[in-house]
Amino acid sequence: MANIQQVAEKAGVSAATVSRVLNNVSSVSSKTRLKVEHAIKELNYEPSMLGRNLRNSESRLLLVLIPSISNPFYTEIIKGIETIAIANHYNILLCATDSNAERDNIYFNMVKNKLADGIISMDPTINRQKLNELAEKHPIILCSEYEEGGSIPYVTIDHKLAAYHAVKHLIKLGNKKIALINSDETYLYARQRREGYERALQEFNLPIRKEWIYHTEHLEFEHGVHAMRRLLQVNERPTAVFAVSDTLAIGALKEINVNGLHVPNDIAVVGFDKITFSNMTNPTLTTVAQPMYKMGCTAANMLINRIKGNQVESIVLDHELVIRESTMG
Amino acid sequence: MANIQQVAEKAGVSAATVSRVLNNVSSVSSKTRLKVEHAIKELNYEPSMLGRNLRNSESRLLLVLIPSISNPFYTEIIKGIETIAIANHYNILLCATDSNAERDNIYFNMVKNKLADGIISMDPTINRQKLNELAEKHPIILCSEYEEGGSIPYVTIDHKLAAYHAVKHLIKLGNKKIALINSDETYLYARQRREGYERALQEFNLPIRKEWIYHTEHLEFEHGVHAMRRLLQVNERPTAVFAVSDTLAIGALKEINVNGLHVPNDIAVVGFDKITFSNMTNPTLTTVAQPMYKMGCTAANMLINRIKGNQVESIVLDHELVIRESTMG
Repeated sequence: MANIQQVAEKAGVSAATVSRVLNNVSSVSSKTRLKVEHAIKELNYEPSMLGRNLRNSESRLLLVLIPSISNPFYTEIIKGIETIAIANHYNILLCATDSNAERDNIYFNMVKNKLADGIISMDPTINRQKLNELAEKHPIILCSEYEEGGSIPYVTIDHKLAAYHAVKHLIKLGNKKIALINSDETYLYARQRREGYERALQEFNLPIRKEWIYHTEHLEFEHGVHAMRRLLQVNERPTAVFAVSDTLAIGALKEINVNGLHVPNDIAVVGFDKITFSNMTNPTLTTVAQPMYKMGCTAANMLINRIKGNQVESIVLDHELVIRESTMG
Repeated sequence: MANIQQVAEKAGVSAATVSRVLNNVSSVSSKTRLKVEHAIKELNYEPSMLGRNLRNSESRLLLVLIPSISNPFYTEIIKGIETIAIANHYNILLCATDSNAERDNIYFNMVKNKLADGIISMDPTINRQKLNELAEKHPIILCSEYEEGGSIPYVTIDHKLAAYHAVKHLIKLGNKKIALINSDETYLYARQRREGYERALQEFNLPIRKEWIYHTEHLEFEHGVHAMRRLLQVNERPTAVFAVSDTLAIGALKEINVNGLHVPNDIAVVGFDKITFSNMTNPTLTTVAQPMYKMGCTAANMLINRIKGNQVESIVLDHELVIRESTMG
């Protein structure tokens, strides 16, 4: 493709003059303007999208940062974001950060350089300091994972209360030995869900045992399998398991089945998220439903409001315990 | 953020001069250059990413077009693309097209405007004509779905042969009534897999019955559930099912279980793709493994080669039949 220099040569003017024509600077004579426009057409030169963006001062593009595309938890949220974005004539780009700081920088720079109008971040591993700096000048919304006392608006659920409800359900069914398969507690949601788990046990005077709490680094199925394998080896075997994601819970289900034990008669299982798969397992999975689609819609509405220059408040959405076969047989 | 006009005013020069400084045009005096650079710093003006891209003539950004993020089939492919991209100092952006032509256009324009260096398309619903036009001037690779006799290089597997192997496996187990849950046959892969299914049945003189072939519009679990529900209502019930995606097969498994039938004793099931979840079902799913990660790596290598200006040839990778409990009990 031709560049600005070639257009300038063709038109017999300087590159700066071509730039002036492209930027509609009024000091260019109509004769010069015609020559430049002719050269642009002849060389099939395409003025940059950014050139256009600077004139409009918006790109109509929203970035959505997710840690990885492996977890179906994000699917429904993204559908919600898309729906609202498209209804408001925005498009979204999905950015899988894989918790890589260099890649975060690229996406941050897209916003700084006005190639995107704002960011919805769902990545709990993102560099907080850089994100906060960016948020001083550019529209940013946190979705699901947020910072306690931070300045960036967020949409989330009450993770502690949701975990409390899940564990209380297991207690009400008669379980006294309840294990927790938790994620890495560097993440706020993991700390809050552990607090909810402990709150329920304490309320019913049940023991909190270190050997019944297992931490996984990642949320894939295999990590749930591995966690359950370890929990089955504990001296006093738990009769119920609360896993902080459906992917972990489904892995746990699998491992319990493989060992010839029955769910829920031998061990009851509760997951978190209500991903689509959770209804395809055998038995189907009891889980805490996050309003994922609504969360996505809300995050997109908040971001678009920020882009328009409005103040937005953080929002805490309701969760719901969906009781299925893995606890009720 | 400041724009070029404000920088020009601050420096007491024309916008064209600022543009010349930004583009390193040599005709600017060092005194003027200093004044402009000072104004840029003071106003915190950030020259556009595109300005830089035009100088480098590359963005180091690859676009990956997927029809939707709901199908985990894409997850492993994208991991492969990412690995090779990052190793070659490229970054990728995931574009969920949702089979929407307007959104295709935005991504096509990003390439035309050099905001991205090339495209890997996995979207079978994409506008072929526009893609072919774009491919005349810009690097494009098709991944998984391709065009027979088309000019754009692709990486895929032999869908017909893979389907033939899957159905032959069911025949060898003694099944004579074999159903097909197929996708929309406007897609090449769906036509090719149906051909493989028919080839196996014909080879063993087994009937091809219209009532045993069910087409779904989408590939989500629920569509597999629905397809199986219909197949269970057919007068002569099939003893085996080949579904063209694991998500459909898992939905079928679920519906068979719900009806109190046993897999594989009553009905054997084979899927396609070997998504992670296919090993978490009960029973585990026999499936055709596409080398998804390798396919992603190959597509990325091909695209990067095209960007470097090299010719690349289309590649057909090997598939593998992974035999598990849903056919072998």
